[in-house]
Amino acid sequence: MAKAEIISIGDEILIGQITNTNAQWMAQQLNLVGISVSYLITVGDNREDILKSLSDAQNRSDIILITGGLGPTSDDITKPVLCEFFKTDLVFKEDLFEDVKKMFASRNIPMPASNRGQAEVPKNCIPIRNQNGTAPGMWFENSVAAVGRGGKQSSLPPAAANCQLFISLPGVPYEMKAMMEEFVIPQLKNKFSMTAGPASRWEQQFIIHKTVHTQGVGESTLAEKIKAWEDSLSPLNIKLAYLPSPGQVKLRLSAKGNNKIILTGSIDERIAELRKIIPGSIFAVEEYGKEPETLEKTIGEILRSKKKTLAVAESCTGGYIGHLITSIAGSSDYFNGGIIAYANDLKVNILKVDENTIKVNGSVSKEVAEQMAIGVRQRLKADFGLATTGIAGPSGGSYEKPVGTVWIAVSSEGKVVSERFLFGTHRERNIRRAGLTALNMLRTMLETNP
Amino acid sequence: MAKAEIISIGDEILIGQITNTNAQWMAQQLNLVGISVSYLITVGDNREDILKSLSDAQNRSDIILITGGLGPTSDDITKPVLCEFFKTDLVFKEDLFEDVKKMFASRNIPMPASNRGQAEVPKNCIPIRNQNGTAPGMWFENSVAAVGRGGKQSSLPPAAANCQLFISLPGVPYEMKAMMEEFVIPQLKNKFSMTAGPASRWEQQFIIHKTVHTQGVGESTLAEKIKAWEDSLSPLNIKLAYLPSPGQVKLRLSAKGNNKIILTGSIDERIAELRKIIPGSIFAVEEYGKEPETLEKTIGEILRSKKKTLAVAESCTGGYIGHLITSIAGSSDYFNGGIIAYANDLKVNILKVDENTIKVNGSVSKEVAEQMAIGVRQRLKADFGLATTGIAGPSGGSYEKPVGTVWIAVSSEGKVVSERFLFGTHRERNIRRAGLTALNMLRTMLETNP
Repeated sequence: MAKAEIISIGDEILIGQITNTNAQWMAQQLNLVGISVSYLITVGDNREDILKSLSDAQNRSDIILITGGLGPTSDDITKPVLCEFFKTDLVFKEDLFEDVKKMFASRNIPMPASNRGQAEVPKNCIPIRNQNGTAPGMWFENSVAAVGRGGKQSSLPPAAANCQLFISLPGVPYEMKAMMEEFVIPQLKNKFSMTAGPASRWEQQFIIHKTVHTQGVGESTLAEKIKAWEDSLSPLNIKLAYLPSPGQVKLRLSAKGNNKIILTGSIDERIAELRKIIPGSIFAVEEYGKEPETLEKTIGEILRSKKKTLAVAESCTGGYIGHLITSIAGSSDYFNGGIIAYANDLKVNILKVDENTIKVNGSVSKEVAEQMAIGVRQRLKADFGLATTGIAGPSGGSYEKPVGTVWIAVSSEGKVVSERFLFGTHRERNIRRAGLTALNMLRTMLETNP
Repeated sequence: MAKAEIISIGDEILIGQITNTNAQWMAQQLNLVGISVSYLITVGDNREDILKSLSDAQNRSDIILITGGLGPTSDDITKPVLCEFFKTDLVFKEDLFEDVKKMFASRNIPMPASNRGQAEVPKNCIPIRNQNGTAPGMWFENSVAAVGRGGKQSSLPPAAANCQLFISLPGVPYEMKAMMEEFVIPQLKNKFSMTAGPASRWEQQFIIHKTVHTQGVGESTLAEKIKAWEDSLSPLNIKLAYLPSPGQVKLRLSAKGNNKIILTGSIDERIAELRKIIPGSIFAVEEYGKEPETLEKTIGEILRSKKKTLAVAESCTGGYIGHLITSIAGSSDYFNGGIIAYANDLKVNILKVDENTIKVNGSVSKEVAEQMAIGVRQRLKADFGLATTGIAGPSGGSYEKPVGTVWIAVSSEGKVVSERFLFGTHRERNIRRAGLTALNMLRTMLETNP
């Protein structure tokens, strides 16, 4: 099995200004195609540390992925340092320059002169084109032989010695991701098929991961409910991980081996069992490396297939539900729009909530939530109306309605369902939990509606 | 200045199952007390890689922080490996065992026998008590001399040779954080005050970081505009980093030295200069370790101080602007609400956009954006109205109005300003760019308005 190492370059990581999500994502992608990652290294934007990390990696890894330090500004030094490491020079590539120019033209922005340098790459690399930015990636192959360094290559079988790889990518996540998906991963897979065989370090192993998305049950309650099921995984060599986040718990099942079909079958069977234990809580099963599953995607698919439309009336969620729904391409087919009814005035004048109801019950109440859901559905001429009203916090609560109290209502023709929740005192998490819970209530109504 | 290195141990990080937020947080805490971090290393739960990373660290760093692998189960091997590294043995500590027993008693859970081992630590360490879990931390001092290893100590001045530190902490974030805050950081500060002096590597140094937040200018265009200013930083020993993300570029200025007041003054002066060069683009300056600055926060502060209110009309941003605004606690004081006008019907019926204007100009047009901004301001009785209409993509564009075309308008009493943008073809980034650009246009109007 090929061993990989990821080197992240950037002072912003060392001073703790950003979390290194790139390394996590890349490690996941490599694992997915059967390449195990042994080291994650982060160094700053300085020559000595970058050079040292490159030569360390050269002495222990088959595939070295490098991110960061490829921008057009003076603090970005990865490219000259790579030249120094490989004892080579930069060359200007006309086709890369065309890409850079196109990038600026597409956004109607004049190209600053400094960007000419973005079209220069070390002589010994294969450039990787960047569809989303100006910095090309770089693929270095057989570089051990090329620079005649000592160490690893002598102790490796010929197949591996011939394919030590250094791959340098930009640190901007979406640029890096697109290049990984469109070029790096397919090329690595290709390499496997050429060199696979029992004697090779490149022998392919499969790791199958599937992730079950649940909503509405907390982590420890869930763990209790599924304990017997969880105990059944270990004899099958299936690993389980709980991945909790506000409003959702994901369950990841993983199995390793050389027969993909057997592994997948055994995981699928366990998921089928799980569905029987917590039928209402699972809204999607995600395959590792595929587009992530979300409630808003699931809901979009149901609305589209049923040819139904939706409108939202948001008080405490302040636009978050609308944002989730409209983050899905093509959502205009089923989403009419919404009212962010922050001030009570809007609830009364636009959503036609009865003023007296607000006076008697308060705006955070079952009655107001239900009238909002009905009002927005009628006013925006939709088949379904979804409404939230609550106290997001961190202040504004009372003894009877503490911070985190949220009423959610869903309305369809002739029907309205509502429920009260208590989400806690943290504003951001309350908004997220309220939004996801509202979507899950809508999903439940959509699935039971004919 | 003391140099630190953080070693994270755990297979779950290498397979990309979790993001390593521990290392980020620890790096931040160390930087705040003047300790710079040079390397972040992640290795799996295996003996060879842990040993190798420890000896690498010993040869280059003054302070080595290690997290993970301290649990009671068989996959946790950090403690025996530390014993092997320091050529010592585990000893059982009665007081640590009392802590472990108390932990279980407080939760009314019978203690599994495997937890007795949690009270064993290497002979040569000072144990760090854990108030939130069963694994004690470990503080190793003078360990270089104690084990007589080669490398670093011979080449260091005596002060440094006497205080190379290895600190091992649990990987559970809240356990690690409590131990860092209550023991490790105070002890490190203490060490500074004892050993400070010009000859010592432990002399206290300060690193001052300030981050300037800009909106509306791309990275390389910005770099061109501020080139002369950037050139002025280097003679002052101020480092500049560009941190781009969709719709924003942050500029981080960092300076190192032993006089905090001089460093801060010199950075502040440079920022004042920068404000003259790009006056419209800077919306906030963030101090390191303080709450992050955002446009929605800046806008909230201005609206509150001017006692003005806001309403939004969102088409292509679908609720995102409302979500940003309402993510700020207390936003109900100045945010009346919004209309997510996805369907044209809402634009006409609620926002009072002229139907004929849509027919003639299309819904993505200057005229419609302006009528939306005026309409929402009037309808929702706000002082300012903000509107977006565009093609978020990835499909739906035309030759004249390609995907990514967005019209944004801001309206106040008797005034309306609008602008056309072209943001690209990626839906999520378009929505983000459009939202942030709209907020910045609003900010500009707010700041110029009396």
